[in-house]
Amino acid sequence: MEIKKVSGGVCAAKGFKAWGTFGGLGKPGKGKDDMAVVLSDCVGTAAAVYTSNKVKAAHISVCKEHLADGKAQAMLCNSINANTCTPDGVEVAKYNCSLLAREAGIAAEDIIVTSTGVIGKPMPREPFEKGIPELVKNASYDGGDKAAKAIMTTDTLDKQAAVVFSAGGKECTIGGMAKGSGMIHINMGTMLCFLTTDCAISSEMLEKALRAEVVDSFNQVSIDGDTSTNDTLSIIANGMAGNETIVSEGEDFENFKAALHEISVIFARKIAGDGEGCTKLIQAHVSGAPDKETARLISKSIICSSLFKAAIFGCDANWGRVLCAIGYTPADFDASNIDVSLSSAKGSIDVCSGSASLPMDEDKALEILKEEEVNVEVDIHDGDADAYAWGCDLTYEYVKINGEYRS
Amino acid sequence: MEIKKVSGGVCAAKGFKAWGTFGGLGKPGKGKDDMAVVLSDCVGTAAAVYTSNKVKAAHISVCKEHLADGKAQAMLCNSINANTCTPDGVEVAKYNCSLLAREAGIAAEDIIVTSTGVIGKPMPREPFEKGIPELVKNASYDGGDKAAKAIMTTDTLDKQAAVVFSAGGKECTIGGMAKGSGMIHINMGTMLCFLTTDCAISSEMLEKALRAEVVDSFNQVSIDGDTSTNDTLSIIANGMAGNETIVSEGEDFENFKAALHEISVIFARKIAGDGEGCTKLIQAHVSGAPDKETARLISKSIICSSLFKAAIFGCDANWGRVLCAIGYTPADFDASNIDVSLSSAKGSIDVCSGSASLPMDEDKALEILKEEEVNVEVDIHDGDADAYAWGCDLTYEYVKINGEYRS
Repeated sequence: MEIKKVSGGVCAAKGFKAWGTFGGLGKPGKGKDDMAVVLSDCVGTAAAVYTSNKVKAAHISVCKEHLADGKAQAMLCNSINANTCTPDGVEVAKYNCSLLAREAGIAAEDIIVTSTGVIGKPMPREPFEKGIPELVKNASYDGGDKAAKAIMTTDTLDKQAAVVFSAGGKECTIGGMAKGSGMIHINMGTMLCFLTTDCAISSEMLEKALRAEVVDSFNQVSIDGDTSTNDTLSIIANGMAGNETIVSEGEDFENFKAALHEISVIFARKIAGDGEGCTKLIQAHVSGAPDKETARLISKSIICSSLFKAAIFGCDANWGRVLCAIGYTPADFDASNIDVSLSSAKGSIDVCSGSASLPMDEDKALEILKEEEVNVEVDIHDGDADAYAWGCDLTYEYVKINGEYRS
Repeated sequence: MEIKKVSGGVCAAKGFKAWGTFGGLGKPGKGKDDMAVVLSDCVGTAAAVYTSNKVKAAHISVCKEHLADGKAQAMLCNSINANTCTPDGVEVAKYNCSLLAREAGIAAEDIIVTSTGVIGKPMPREPFEKGIPELVKNASYDGGDKAAKAIMTTDTLDKQAAVVFSAGGKECTIGGMAKGSGMIHINMGTMLCFLTTDCAISSEMLEKALRAEVVDSFNQVSIDGDTSTNDTLSIIANGMAGNETIVSEGEDFENFKAALHEISVIFARKIAGDGEGCTKLIQAHVSGAPDKETARLISKSIICSSLFKAAIFGCDANWGRVLCAIGYTPADFDASNIDVSLSSAKGSIDVCSGSASLPMDEDKALEILKEEEVNVEVDIHDGDADAYAWGCDLTYEYVKINGEYRS
């Protein structure tokens, strides 16, 4: 089955409009919109997964309530304020849904509402009273860019992607947008990612696919080890591709899952590559692990190591830190026969064999590590399982951004 | 029982000599010694705990072999080279013990041998052939400073401490030295810490005390989340204080444990406060937890958060990141009623009550956070257990040190 990357984002699938605007949550005059909407032409099936953090954004309980019936028609998202640890967060989130419902002529219970930004600041209502009518009035089939930019916080790039696949002989599309740059160590859900598809699929199968997918894409991303209070990955499937509704396992479901995996990995890499202050995307691929979960844990341990992340920032092929990070992975495997190589668009170099040093051409290593995407390839030689994880380097800029974030 | 801090380090207890010298592992002319020895006048009981990292320094298997009988007379340590992931690391470690045994007239099996430095570089023998005779020739009862400086890597300060307590009516001393500044997220053992005591105690009780102690002192320190391959905490007890040997539980053993705790917390704080590139020591105290282990996990989660560490570097009272770090702690507790306050020598300020924001005097917060020691006080209101953890801020300098470490 072929999956094709196409241009576009949250409006790439049939029947989805979007927009972004400035409601007034942030400081005016900064040219940065602070809220976005995605509207489907009809009610669709829907699913979401959320952060595992015990301290949760107010929007999460509202989303769970709204998605209890497996249906949704719209997504509403604001940046600047996380609506977390606020006294009346749930009330404000519900109020905002009622505003959008009234303006768009849809049911408040069919809205997926989310927030991202600073934790612990009371959430004002006025910006939404001003912004939501604007969002609805301007929402259009080519408003995806505007929406994707409005949900950014410390992101330097908006994150959009779309893939096309086929189900039941019909061409289907999954598109989406995401934000996320700091407080990212995804567990169970993700920062904020909004997917839309015109594929017809039951809410049960949609949720099943989404829950299975996060394990090997979003959950394998870490920027700073901090699992956010707001992580939410959501999807609406409006069925407008006209395929026979996917209601069980089978070829169509496999195709849908493959397309969902493709777009999820694209977003996982986009998020890692735009980590706060980062200059490089780091991909770790671990093979030869005794089982899949061990491979996941080891690859994630590597891309989480502050020391290795700082070394990569300095283009220093300090592979000892890779071995160190492998060694403290909380899993059961043999660490005595590990091979490590480093690669990028400029070639590949073996740095460690049988858990011991190899003579290294430092000039070649430097040339490889100067690239914007660096791969760490690890073979544990203790089984057949493999996994990927994505992270970024640790830089002066990360410290700067996070030493000054609230001010 | 009174425990008194006194001056001195590894030579503070009776009958311990020490020295440091330049053997040639590092570059000459940098004024930095690279190896140290501690020699007891007689064979003592001894114990050690080691890193939980699966990738282990060569010295660890040698130490375990040498300490199988619970006895030791000397400690040998080098900096610059970790002797980890090297082809003949165990052979070199044993060779070095044989050199020291010959020079000092002691048994090779009574030597605790350790290394710290870069991983994956073959360990040369010549520097030890040159350095060890110097160490033995010059070892003296006031050589503790020299030894403590020789074992430093990126440490900016040497770390020494000593406490006096009483056992069986005799005054006993525990002294020690430690090194550790990066790759520090201690688990089961510690970076390198060498303790010496003149207290008479059986090797069984010594090991029991040491294993119990690390849980609430060294294991609660994290600088960068990276558990080293070389962490080793060792102690020799030569019995020269003349107390009746401690062979069982009882008042003397409690006194010994209390003194061991006192000196361990001193070293834990010294290590955290000298984290690579750091400007501040962060102490987290969590109370009201349902059990001790949960309190440990929550306090450690706070001091491990990259985001909170960067905020403290920027003197930003971003307590939302404390709530976030508490929330992703892998433990079972109620996160709905958490109080947080920040304090230092300049006073205290409540920032969060009942897991929601409080109005905050930003000027006062800034004044408090500008100090070199910052305390985060957290009450979970879900039980009676409490615990401490120690870490440091995340700075430009950390990134600089670790982007350039190997070069």
